[in-house]
Amino acid sequence: MQKIYIGLIGLGTVGGSVARILQEHTDLIAKRAGVQICVKMAVVRDVAKYANFGIPVSANIEDVLEDEAISIVVELIGGIEYPFDLAKRVFAKNKALVSANKAMLAHHMRDLMECAKNAPIGFEASVCGGVPVIEVLRDSLVANHIVSFEGILNGTSNYILTQMFEQKMSFERALQEAQRLGYAESDPSLDVNGLDAGHKLVILAQLAYGIAVPMGDVLVEGIEGIVLEDLCFADEWGYRIKLLGIATLSNGTLDLRLHLALIPKDTYLAKIDGVTNALSVRGDCVGEVNLCGLGAGGDATASAVIADLVSIARCRNGAYPLPPFGFFESSDCATIKPKGEIESAYYLRFIVCNRSGVLAKITQILADCNISVNEILQKEKGGEVMIGLITYQTQEQHISKALCALAQLDFMQQAPYKIRIR
Amino acid sequence: MQKIYIGLIGLGTVGGSVARILQEHTDLIAKRAGVQICVKMAVVRDVAKYANFGIPVSANIEDVLEDEAISIVVELIGGIEYPFDLAKRVFAKNKALVSANKAMLAHHMRDLMECAKNAPIGFEASVCGGVPVIEVLRDSLVANHIVSFEGILNGTSNYILTQMFEQKMSFERALQEAQRLGYAESDPSLDVNGLDAGHKLVILAQLAYGIAVPMGDVLVEGIEGIVLEDLCFADEWGYRIKLLGIATLSNGTLDLRLHLALIPKDTYLAKIDGVTNALSVRGDCVGEVNLCGLGAGGDATASAVIADLVSIARCRNGAYPLPPFGFFESSDCATIKPKGEIESAYYLRFIVCNRSGVLAKITQILADCNISVNEILQKEKGGEVMIGLITYQTQEQHISKALCALAQLDFMQQAPYKIRIR
Repeated sequence: MQKIYIGLIGLGTVGGSVARILQEHTDLIAKRAGVQICVKMAVVRDVAKYANFGIPVSANIEDVLEDEAISIVVELIGGIEYPFDLAKRVFAKNKALVSANKAMLAHHMRDLMECAKNAPIGFEASVCGGVPVIEVLRDSLVANHIVSFEGILNGTSNYILTQMFEQKMSFERALQEAQRLGYAESDPSLDVNGLDAGHKLVILAQLAYGIAVPMGDVLVEGIEGIVLEDLCFADEWGYRIKLLGIATLSNGTLDLRLHLALIPKDTYLAKIDGVTNALSVRGDCVGEVNLCGLGAGGDATASAVIADLVSIARCRNGAYPLPPFGFFESSDCATIKPKGEIESAYYLRFIVCNRSGVLAKITQILADCNISVNEILQKEKGGEVMIGLITYQTQEQHISKALCALAQLDFMQQAPYKIRIR
Repeated sequence: MQKIYIGLIGLGTVGGSVARILQEHTDLIAKRAGVQICVKMAVVRDVAKYANFGIPVSANIEDVLEDEAISIVVELIGGIEYPFDLAKRVFAKNKALVSANKAMLAHHMRDLMECAKNAPIGFEASVCGGVPVIEVLRDSLVANHIVSFEGILNGTSNYILTQMFEQKMSFERALQEAQRLGYAESDPSLDVNGLDAGHKLVILAQLAYGIAVPMGDVLVEGIEGIVLEDLCFADEWGYRIKLLGIATLSNGTLDLRLHLALIPKDTYLAKIDGVTNALSVRGDCVGEVNLCGLGAGGDATASAVIADLVSIARCRNGAYPLPPFGFFESSDCATIKPKGEIESAYYLRFIVCNRSGVLAKITQILADCNISVNEILQKEKGGEVMIGLITYQTQEQHISKALCALAQLDFMQQAPYKIRIR
C-alpha cells in the first residue's frame, strides 16, 4: 500500500492527538483511505520534551519544508502572520496544507486562495472541531443557495452561559469553573470577546457565499457584561440567550454578525448546552440541516484534521477536486450589510436607583428615538432596581443613539446593556 | 467550462427536482463544481406526459446507456432486481452510478462493490434525504472507530408517532393524516413495517463497519400495533417512543436492529419530531456527532443527488478517490449478534379482562422466565384494563418465551405487546 508522509508543525493537544490516532488507527484509516498516512517529522520548540514521543522531532521547520518525501504539512500552532508565511512556503514547495488555525484563515483567506493555486488546503478542524461543518457547506449542500445559517461556534462561552443559567451562577464564577475544567484558557479573552467565534463565522461565510469578508466589516460582540438576571428575564419571556454567529442573505445583501441573542426556548440552538458546538443551515433545496457535537478537545479536533488528511491523500493521483474555499470561480455574490443598518428587536437592561419617575424617563427617551417597548420586567436588588425590557423591531443606529442618551441619566448606576433578539 | 452529461432514469418527485435544480442553479453549481452538469436525457414510462418538461425524454433505457456522452446515470426508480441489473449495465458501459434506491443498495451492496470495480457510486440520497449522513460516516469520521450509532431513519413513522402523542390520536387517524399530507403512500407498508428504515440501517452499517449484512440477519420491526396508551405510559415514566435504527459494536460483535424504542425524554433523538430524520453517531475520537433535517421530499433528496453528481464530476480527471462503500479494502470487521441474544429492558403492555388475580398471574409467568418487573401502570378503558410494565434487563429469548405463555391466558384480550427500552 502506498504511503503518504506528513509533517506536523506543533505537537500540543491537537498535534499530539493527531500523531497518536494515526498510529493507533493505522489499519482502519488505511483501509478507508486506500493509502497509509505516516507522520515523518514533527516540529516543536522544545525537542527534549518530545524525545520519547515515538516520532522524529525537530526544532527546525526547514526539516519539514525541505523534506521532499513529505507531501502534506499540518499546521497546528497559533498566531496569524507567522503561520501565513509558513503556508506560503508550504505551497511554494508544492506541498498540501492542513490547518486548524481559524485566525490565520479568517484574516488571509483570499491571499491563501491566490498563493495556493491548485494545492489542496484542508481546514475542517478550524470550525466546530470534530463536527464536519466545512464539508457539509462545501460539499453536501453544493446544490443549494444558502438562505441563512446560525451557529454556536464557541464552546467556552456556551459553557459559561449554560452554567450561569442552570446553576444560577455569576459570569465570573462560571468563567472560573470553565478555566478549572480546562474549557477556557487562563487568558480567556478570545473566547469571551467573540473573536474566536467571529473568525469561524467569516470562514463559514466564505464557504456559503464565496465572499471573503474583512474581519472589520463584521459586527463581533462577546459575552462580557452579561449578568445572571439577563438570562432569568429572558427565561420569563420564553427565551434562552446564546452567543450566535448569524448569516442571512436577502436580495444580494449579507447580514453577518456575531453577538449574544435571545432565541425562543423551543428552537434547535436554544437546546444546545455546555461545550457543544452547533450549526443550523437553511438551503433553498434541502431546508434546514442541523449539526452538533464537540467543538474542541484534542481527539475531536484531530478527527477533523485526519478527515482532511485522508481527503487529500485519497486524491494523490489526480488533481485535487475540492475547491479551496467552496468555489472554483470565486466572485463575491453578496455585499455585506453595514453595521448601522442591522434591524432587530432588542432586550435592554438598566440598573438604576430606586426612585420614582425612572421608568417614565427611560421610556420617554426610547420613544424620542422611535423605539417602542413590548415587554417590561423589573427586580429589586439591594438598593438598586434592575429593569429589563424588550423593544419592537428597530434599527441598530436608533438603539445606539438611545443608549447614549440613556447612559447620561443621573439615576443610571451602570451603562445600559443590550442584547439582540433573534 | 467543461460539461458533464448525465442521464436520469425516472422523472418523478425526486427526478423532477434534480432536473429543475440543475437548471435553475446552473451557475452556482458550476462555480462550486468546476464543471457544468447537464441533463442530456431522461428515461420515463410515459413520454407524452413529459413532452414540455424542457429536457429530452425517451421511453428506451438504451438511449441513455448507449450514449457515450453521458458519463453518469442517475437511477431514481423503485424495485430491487431491475435497478440492480441496470446498475450492472451502467458499470459495463464505464459510466458512474448515482442511486437513491435504498432497497436495491441494501440487498446488493456486496454485488455492487464487485461489479462497480473502480466506477464511482453515489448514494447519499438513499438515507435521510438531504441530511448528509453518508458523507459524514464515509469521509468526516474516517479517523474514528464507530462505537455506535442510532437514527430516526423514516420520517413517515416518526410523523405518525409524533402526531399520536401530541394530538392524542389513534394510530389509524395519524396514518390517515400522514397520507392526506403526502407523507405516507396509499400503501404505507414499507414505512410502517420498518423495512424502509431497515434498508437504511444496513447501508449505514456497511459504511460504519465495512460489513455487508444480509437483511435477514437484522431484527426489523415496525410501528404497527402501537396504541396511544403506550406513548402515554412511556411519558409518565419519562420516555418518548421512537422507531430507531441502532448499531452498537462491542468486542467485535455488532448489535444491529430496527425497532420501536423507549428513550429518555431529554436525549437528542427523543426531541426529533415530525417528518425530520436524525442520526446520532459516536466515534471513539470525535465523541457524539448529531445531524438532523428533512429525510424526504423532492428538493431535499435532489440536494443529496446533486452533491453526489458534483463529487463525481469534480474528479473527472483522476481516479475517483472515494471508496464505494467506505472501505477500499473491505473485510468484515464484526459479526452480527444473533437476534435471540439481544439484551434489553422491555416495556410490556397487556389488555386484559377486569378481573382479580390478573396481575399476579402475569407477574408469576414473568418470574418463571427470570424476568423482573421494575415499574407498573394500569388504566381502565371500557370493561378492559390496560397494564403497562417495565422489566429489568433481560434477553430477547426470555421475553419471547414469556410472551408466548402469557398469550395463552384466558383473560388476555389481545396478544401482549412489547417495546424495547434504550
